[in-house]
Amino acid sequence: MSDFPRGYLAAGWNSGIKDTTLDFGVIYSEAPAAAAAVFTRNNFPGKPVVVGREHIAGGVLQAIVVNSKNSNVATGDPGLMLAREMCSLTAESLGIETTHVLPSSTGVIGRLPPIEKIHAACREAKARLRTADFHSFADAIRTTDKTVKLASRTLGNGVKLTIAAKGAGMIEPNMATMLVYAVTDAKIDAADLRRMLPCVANRSFNRITVDSDTSTSDTFVIMANGVSGHTIKFPDAAKSALDSDLEFDSKTDLPGLDANSNEFYRTFVELSQQVSRSIVSDGEGATKILEVRITEARSKDQALKIARSIANSPLIKTAIHGGDPNWGRIIMAVGKVFDEPVPFENLKIYFGDVLLEMTGTDQLPILQAYLKKPQIVLRVSLGLGKSEERVWGCDLSREYISINADYTT
Amino acid sequence: MSDFPRGYLAAGWNSGIKDTTLDFGVIYSEAPAAAAAVFTRNNFPGKPVVVGREHIAGGVLQAIVVNSKNSNVATGDPGLMLAREMCSLTAESLGIETTHVLPSSTGVIGRLPPIEKIHAACREAKARLRTADFHSFADAIRTTDKTVKLASRTLGNGVKLTIAAKGAGMIEPNMATMLVYAVTDAKIDAADLRRMLPCVANRSFNRITVDSDTSTSDTFVIMANGVSGHTIKFPDAAKSALDSDLEFDSKTDLPGLDANSNEFYRTFVELSQQVSRSIVSDGEGATKILEVRITEARSKDQALKIARSIANSPLIKTAIHGGDPNWGRIIMAVGKVFDEPVPFENLKIYFGDVLLEMTGTDQLPILQAYLKKPQIVLRVSLGLGKSEERVWGCDLSREYISINADYTT
Repeated sequence: MSDFPRGYLAAGWNSGIKDTTLDFGVIYSEAPAAAAAVFTRNNFPGKPVVVGREHIAGGVLQAIVVNSKNSNVATGDPGLMLAREMCSLTAESLGIETTHVLPSSTGVIGRLPPIEKIHAACREAKARLRTADFHSFADAIRTTDKTVKLASRTLGNGVKLTIAAKGAGMIEPNMATMLVYAVTDAKIDAADLRRMLPCVANRSFNRITVDSDTSTSDTFVIMANGVSGHTIKFPDAAKSALDSDLEFDSKTDLPGLDANSNEFYRTFVELSQQVSRSIVSDGEGATKILEVRITEARSKDQALKIARSIANSPLIKTAIHGGDPNWGRIIMAVGKVFDEPVPFENLKIYFGDVLLEMTGTDQLPILQAYLKKPQIVLRVSLGLGKSEERVWGCDLSREYISINADYTT
Repeated sequence: MSDFPRGYLAAGWNSGIKDTTLDFGVIYSEAPAAAAAVFTRNNFPGKPVVVGREHIAGGVLQAIVVNSKNSNVATGDPGLMLAREMCSLTAESLGIETTHVLPSSTGVIGRLPPIEKIHAACREAKARLRTADFHSFADAIRTTDKTVKLASRTLGNGVKLTIAAKGAGMIEPNMATMLVYAVTDAKIDAADLRRMLPCVANRSFNRITVDSDTSTSDTFVIMANGVSGHTIKFPDAAKSALDSDLEFDSKTDLPGLDANSNEFYRTFVELSQQVSRSIVSDGEGATKILEVRITEARSKDQALKIARSIANSPLIKTAIHGGDPNWGRIIMAVGKVFDEPVPFENLKIYFGDVLLEMTGTDQLPILQAYLKKPQIVLRVSLGLGKSEERVWGCDLSREYISINADYTT
């Protein structure tokens, strides 16, 4: 029995935008689905993001249409018209409302996509959607991604949840060249989805960084079509718990949520973290995942700023790449968050479970051995309070340069 | 006739801290000199910075003592004691006040320097200072620097100014692993130096970036011993002009300064920019200098934030490295300064003197040819006001990774 939620069809195919690889994908729900989304904070969003914001405002989606190879960003009025046409033509093919379609595009910036090819692909939507082929959909939305990102789970009550995503570079902060589509057959009101989705993002996709650059196209959407017959609720009463300073990995149930809703939320966060890590580990040129945990911070905000300073430091990323326990650079990165001073004597730095001794070189062999692992956890305890945050990043390798030095040409 | 200011001795030599290369340097003024300094904003400054802040408070210096190979950062009380001893032992050797000595250390973080060797070197100060050997001094303070950074000029009235500096990585923002020592034989009051020095820094050393990391040791000092007999003034009345939004390269005289003081200031800024560019062009692994100019900004602050976002973007740095005119990444980097939105239709992007056309690919050969140059100027006009800023950075190459992946081991 598949973990894919019921009532959805999906497909990915080649529409010839650039070459013969998969470049076009559609997800379709047989019934109109409640929906919510968060988008890039970049001030120059892609045209599909502009249209997507309009369409998601109604809280209902029935289809998602995505092309790769071209992001339709900085393409003026013709680009905006094309993003609208992606919706209207796909809607026409599927026999649904235009405003129930959310569009995405990812790829090179500043070039108008080939209009005729996009039009033709949208018109094929219905014919392509013979099976719930989330795998080819997730394949088709890739750009520099080496792996297909797809995660699914069936909950105890039979509710199913699938996440299909892409992302490998231009990742951070607050989304990335990251497209994430979550679909479930639970019944969840749009207002509840809007309350819950940003909290999931802040525990996963908004906590990863590859290169500190922020894409113009980031989109994280959830559709809930209710086909399973099970209702999940994220009522207003649970909002403060969802937003709270609770431990990142807390297994305790959130107050204000019933058991099924708690399970749904926890599963959604877990799958999102799993996909987030797969994005980071597919980071352009990455050979290692770096998890940065800040504990005992004065506030979540302080913890996050310092975590990002560490995870984005080129000097730390290169040291991790080289397996070099040059912990002075961690000190530097904590200290360069000018507006969040930390008493030096409070600092405790852990490589995995090993507390760093800041004198002598006796620990060097242990630390060097630890840094040979493919997944590195750096924990810095600030000794100031109880807040914590976590950011996932990766090392910086020669391969990142090779990938990015001649991407368009 | 040398451009080195009169009344100063300098030397650099090997004290055996790590190997047999030059690693220890002293500058000495025969007369006590008025002095001012700015230091790193990193919250974990090196021990020499702690001591330097105390000593500069009096506004008088007579010597500067510097070691490379070890930064004396995160070294606890023994490190602090050593920084104090660097001053007292050097002062003893030279027969001057301990508080008239400013110490600096640069190199690896987190290891106590070899105390006996440092002590011995300080005791040799007087014997070593036979000639005003600024070149060997500038050579001795290098870490990963490939070039010696030294610039001198004689002004119309005979006043001389020399800058000796080091810096190649961990550069940005607001100083860097950057040590800069300016010496002049002009007579300038300490209060005037304090007024002027930060303005020079903000037009040069605070506007360069190699990797967005901020060192714990940055120091920019000026000593003015008055031996030339010429007085230069930066009175309170000139402060607003010094701090103002004036054009970056303004050749017009600043109001409130006499002709000689204007010439001194302009020369100091020019030399500082020259040394800044030499630091960037010596950026770890750099093959090209990137100058980012933001014009027609609403404020200096807006211009600077956007300039730094561009100059620090790994995606832009790699594109510059590859000679790839992927201007969409410039759009992305302007747009990711979330709190400074710019209307897209206002944006004008220039590669050198060429205004980018954001449609079609006709310009591609011209832009590709331009990006083959060793010095690239990207200008972005925001169409919002009259403020401008400029930041110097460099490309990001495989060599940066090689240099930094195994620095300590």
